[in-house]
Formats: sequence, structure tokens, C-alpha cells
Amino acid sequence: MTYCVAMCLDDGLVFLSDSRTNAGVDAISTFRKMTVFEQAGDRVMVLLTAGNLAISQSVRQYLMEGREQRSLWEARDMFEAATLVGDAIRAVHRRDAESLKGFGIDFNISMIFGGQIKGERPRLFQMYSAGNFIEATQENCYFQIGEAKYGKPILDRVLTPQMPLDEAAKCALISMDSTLKSNVSVGLPLDLLVYGVDELAVSRFVTVDENNAYFKMIRKAWGQRLRQVFDEVRDPVWDASVSAEHPLRMSGGTHGSVPLYAVKPTGTGKGN
Amino acid sequence: MTYCVAMCLDDGLVFLSDSRTNAGVDAISTFRKMTVFEQAGDRVMVLLTAGNLAISQSVRQYLMEGREQRSLWEARDMFEAATLVGDAIRAVHRRDAESLKGFGIDFNISMIFGGQIKGERPRLFQMYSAGNFIEATQENCYFQIGEAKYGKPILDRVLTPQMPLDEAAKCALISMDSTLKSNVSVGLPLDLLVYGVDELAVSRFVTVDENNAYFKMIRKAWGQRLRQVFDEVRDPVWDASVSAEHPLRMSGGTHGSVPLYAVKPTGTGKGN
Repeated sequence: MTYCVAMCLDDGLVFLSDSRTNAGVDAISTFRKMTVFEQAGDRVMVLLTAGNLAISQSVRQYLMEGREQRSLWEARDMFEAATLVGDAIRAVHRRDAESLKGFGIDFNISMIFGGQIKGERPRLFQMYSAGNFIEATQENCYFQIGEAKYGKPILDRVLTPQMPLDEAAKCALISMDSTLKSNVSVGLPLDLLVYGVDELAVSRFVTVDENNAYFKMIRKAWGQRLRQVFDEVRDPVWDASVSAEHPLRMSGGTHGSVPLYAVKPTGTGKGN
Repeated sequence: MTYCVAMCLDDGLVFLSDSRTNAGVDAISTFRKMTVFEQAGDRVMVLLTAGNLAISQSVRQYLMEGREQRSLWEARDMFEAATLVGDAIRAVHRRDAESLKGFGIDFNISMIFGGQIKGERPRLFQMYSAGNFIEATQENCYFQIGEAKYGKPILDRVLTPQMPLDEAAKCALISMDSTLKSNVSVGLPLDLLVYGVDELAVSRFVTVDENNAYFKMIRKAWGQRLRQVFDEVRDPVWDASVSAEHPLRMSGGTHGSVPLYAVKPTGTGKGN
């Protein structure tokens, strides 16, 4: 199902995507989910896709051809650019949705679209199947698409808009690692792009495969340290009469210590 | 949507459930998801439910009344007991599924059922809407139902069948904590039951609310230590020429360092 995450921070943007696609367990392939639109000195835009691969690719093709009156290459600002991405989704919907429906397939697509056009700050959007979208804010500075749940807790715990870009890239990779471990529909290699405010060019991009030294280190170190932290946190103490710094049960009384018991009907089967 | 997790370990069983239920964001309530069937000295069985609450409660009522020829109180072994739970689900399906369908509601239920009957080892099952089920094994020693994804990574990282029960309870609580932080459809209080092999009675049960000292400690300590570990893990080094122990990019060549670029159509808009 894929997993992509992107962050809009004070220092710029971070984008990370996997590349696994599948049409069932016997049809697993690799397709890159990140497309970069770059016009050095003027604009950098990044598109991440999840959902139906055929639809994603059609939308991407539509955008690259620039069929609209104004194309991504000419959009005045990122909001207009996002509406153009929405228009592309709707164009593919008009062409394909009914045929898909005839085969019982939903028109299902989600995208993350972000970047910077000269003269404006970097911006980040999440696109929906209907072609509409929301924008990232200070209060909600990241978006996820695809298999988002496994990797969400670490983002909620540590990420803020003030986080430096490389630290945020580390955070994204850890979020991806949790997802890779728990869901086989997400897989290597990954595309990682870090964009600094006003760079207006791509300077920090890498494709991360199973031999990438940094990612291997993160996966091993994070797993080991988590295990260590887990071992260090105290186990619960059940005996309420034993003096414990953080008791699990309060001594005395039965408040909150009785389960919801099923009452055995009288006169049936074994006696008590 | 709820979150429940249970583990079948060499030393016994661990069960943990939340109690939040909702029929939309303006109809959130508390209903306990754990039901305990205990006949001291003979059997202890625990049922955890997720999905449609009306269906869960009907199944529970059906089991408590023991309408079948053999009831849970008389089942010879846990496999038979699990089939009786399946029969109860099917009975409720016969009664309710069509009416629900008329309102566009799926017959959606998932349950975890486990315990020990004297003379047999403890066993754990996951029940499906169709009334069938699977059993936990050494290779797959835990089950989750409801909002399972947020809390899965920690289970995959640390849990083994050899883990002592109290450590496993700690693991379940951490798994629940990650879920509580990332999904508002899961909420306190929680029911935690730890069962030791051949106890054939309930001795370790507690309802965990927001004042529970142990749970408060876990939530705070886990969050703080995770942040600490995150800070200690090195950020990526982009400059391939800088000597780094675990480089993100290899120096020399461009293998794997070029994004999938959208090519700007010639003759449109701004030149490069």
C-alpha cells in the first residue's frame, strides 16, 4: 500500500517515500512514488503518491505534460500549483472512474505535494481523490499517506516545526523503519529529499537501499536502544502491600480492581 | 474503534483492553470490552471485543446465558469453547445481519478469546465476524483487534513467548500508550488481566485510569526516554566527502542519488 511522509518546518521541507507496489501477494514490484519538478533558481516541487498506481501514474503524466492553461512550471504560487494537481486528478477521474467502477474498483488516490516557488515560502499540501486538498500548518506540520499508522507515534512524540532538517530526516527514517518492520506492503528502496528554505534547487537527495550505511545504522541502533529502554522501565508490582514507587494497584479497598464477570447461570452444569 | 491486545506466553496469558466506544464524534462513551468467565479451580476464560458494540454485547449475552447444548462453563477444552463463541457470533448474525444491512451497516465484529481449562494448557484465539477463528502459536504469540497498527511496532520489536508475564504486561501498556497518543477513538480506562499457567483463578486484574501511578510513570518515562534515544542517534551527514562512520551518501558517482525528475516540456513557459 506504500508509505510516504512529508514535513513542513521552519527550515524547509522533508520528503520520504517507499517504492513497493502490489496487486496481491504474488504481484509485488518496485515503482518510485516520488516525482521532482525542478527549475533551478525558480522552483522546486515534489509529488508523493499512494493508492491506485495506475491513477497515480496517469496524474503524474498529466502534470508533466502541462495540459492546463497554466502548468506547474508557470504557477504563480504553490496554492495555484496545488489546484493544478487537483485538476489533473479530476481529469483522470473523468477518464477512468466509471470504467474502474465497472470492475468494482474505487477511484482511490492520495498524494502529498509540496515545494517552493521563488518569492513565496515553502508550502505543503495533502491531496484527496476528489482533487481537493488541505495545507500543512504550524499546528499540523506533517502529512502521511498510505500505511500511515505504524509510523505515526514517533512523529507525534518528537516532531515540531522548529526541528532542524537533518534531525527531521532522521525522524522520517525512523517512522519508515517502524512501518517496514510491521507491514510487508511497504518496502525498500526509499527516496529521501531534504529541501532548505530558498534553495530553489535540489541538493540533498538520496535513494536508500538495503546497503545504505546510515539507514542500516539507524535500524539497528533504534531497535537496540528501544529494547534497552524497555528493559530499564520498571515492570509493574501487583502486590498492593509491597511498597512501590509507582504502584499498579492501590492498597486497601477494591475500587477499580474487579473485572466485568460473566455470571454463571444457576442450575446449569457444574456447581461452584 | 477500540484497541485490545492479548498474548499467549510460556508463563501464561496477558489481556489488555480500552473502553472507549463511539457512534460519531458527538457520541463518545465508555463501555468495558473485557468479560471474564471464572470458575475457580476449574477454568478462567477472557473475552475481548471490538467492532460493532451492539453485536459484541449480544454475543456476550448469548454466551453468558449458555443457550447451546454445551456452554462455556461445560466446554471440555478451549478449542471447543472457541467454537461455542463462534456459534454465538453466528446466532447473532442470523438474528441481526439482514436488518443491519438494510441500514448499510456491515456485520463487523472481532474478538480475542483465551484462557485455561483444567487439564489443558492456556490457549488464545482470534475470532472473526464469520464465527471462525485462528489460534496463537509460538511463532505468532499475540493478537490485536481494533486500532491495531499504532501499537504493533513495539510488539514486533520486543515480544517473545519466553517473556515473563509482568514484562509482557508492561509491553502491552506501552503498546496501548502509543495508540492512545495517536488515535482519539481509543481511551481510558483500561482493563488489564494477567493470568499465570495453572492458576485457574483471577488474581492479577486492575482497571487503569488516568490516576494510575504505574501507567502515568510508564507514559512519562517511555516518552522521555524515547526522546533521549532519538537525540542520541546521529543525524545524517549529507556531504559525501566528509568522513562519516555511517554515510548517508557514498562519495563519488551518482548511483542512486538522482530523483525521478519530471521533464519540462520544451517550448512552454519559462526557459531553464
